[in-house]
Amino acid sequence: MAAARGLVLSRPVTFVTGNAKKLEEVRAILGNSIPFQSLKLDLPELQGEPEDISKEKARMAAVQVNGPVLVEDTCLCFNALKGLPGPYIKWFLQKLGHEGLNNLLMAYDDKSAYALCVFSFAAGSNSEPITFSGKTPGKIVPPRGPNDFGWDPIFEPDGYDQTYAQMPKEEKNKISHRSKSLALGLGFATDQDGGVVADATVTRERLVGFIRGVKNDCCSSSLSIRVVTKFSHRSLCPKNRLIL
Amino acid sequence: MAAARGLVLSRPVTFVTGNAKKLEEVRAILGNSIPFQSLKLDLPELQGEPEDISKEKARMAAVQVNGPVLVEDTCLCFNALKGLPGPYIKWFLQKLGHEGLNNLLMAYDDKSAYALCVFSFAAGSNSEPITFSGKTPGKIVPPRGPNDFGWDPIFEPDGYDQTYAQMPKEEKNKISHRSKSLALGLGFATDQDGGVVADATVTRERLVGFIRGVKNDCCSSSLSIRVVTKFSHRSLCPKNRLIL
Repeated sequence: MAAARGLVLSRPVTFVTGNAKKLEEVRAILGNSIPFQSLKLDLPELQGEPEDISKEKARMAAVQVNGPVLVEDTCLCFNALKGLPGPYIKWFLQKLGHEGLNNLLMAYDDKSAYALCVFSFAAGSNSEPITFSGKTPGKIVPPRGPNDFGWDPIFEPDGYDQTYAQMPKEEKNKISHRSKSLALGLGFATDQDGGVVADATVTRERLVGFIRGVKNDCCSSSLSIRVVTKFSHRSLCPKNRLIL
Repeated sequence: MAAARGLVLSRPVTFVTGNAKKLEEVRAILGNSIPFQSLKLDLPELQGEPEDISKEKARMAAVQVNGPVLVEDTCLCFNALKGLPGPYIKWFLQKLGHEGLNNLLMAYDDKSAYALCVFSFAAGSNSEPITFSGKTPGKIVPPRGPNDFGWDPIFEPDGYDQTYAQMPKEEKNKISHRSKSLALGLGFATDQDGGVVADATVTRERLVGFIRGVKNDCCSSSLSIRVVTKFSHRSLCPKNRLIL
């Protein structure tokens, strides 16, 4: 029975990315224990809310790959700008640079922001994707540290006096939006908009469990009910267990 | 011969929009002389450069409609922000409002902007879309005038002391980015990025000619050659005439 077994993946999960740095981070977080391959696909980038964008991307990717896929989108969300530039950060970074991004907040005392990573997993081309968000709060600062990975130099996570760019990779991977998004086996929480956010520090076991399809009993708290309600399609067994 | 006849449309052109105000403007510009209908389609909104977004939208719409379509995208581009928010203005307006849009420019003395309207016309589901941009320069100001059409209250076109929102509709339609974009029968010019921009005040005759498929001889200037080069696919006759 599916509920007892979880999902058995017939093929390795394809992580869809063309960004070598993202791949490096996901590889570092997942290790070698997951059947996992990466692929660059030419998928259209959509406008919209981050979770919707991610789900649609997973749908399109699963059709192209014809197998299980994991897709990822990263947003940098300024609280004073109500979450923007958000999914459009790539264009803002490209056109305005680090200084221009800081300038967007000139009118505001509130420099707080959050890094948001939305992963969506689709088991196959006919599966409804499941989406999880990892959120790391911080603030926007003038750039510090190596300038080799997007907006890392201007994001200083809360509780640290270093920017993402200045932190050792192992340290960043422990707290980052990307690792939180992947750390979904346990420790769910929701953000203010009701999105699913991992609040626990990632452990490899949790990640492996998530991808491998270990049963995740998410019915033991009110939050879990929300998760079940939200992802109430093919990914759920009749007993409201979230089966990956 | 196609080059002599222009394109004969077997069906009315479908203008794809769900925005009643846009439809009203296009109807006012085109009048009743074009076989013309409107339809709301659920098309994905893409990220990217405005012209690319518009072309892709026309492709998708022509497939869904299975006939000739006209699609339209509007951008509000701040020069200090290198053309952003651009195609993402909808989300910025929705989340930040007029004051928030003004605030984005707090760090800059340059409040200049341009309203950009990109129309794409696809003759059918197998046709390469032709894209034209209409651009109206102006500046971003604190809101003035009725608040019933997007960012009109904060955009003051050059040469006027009224915002779009304050102007009589007939006056706005004469100079607006939307009418310029449609006014493509004659008077081509290019913007700084090489896009095709109509610089002439619109006349109904030009618009009707454009949609009806009257021959547009655009080979008489160096610009025309660029147009021909840019749209060098099925929409062009062997003699490099742009046939609609």
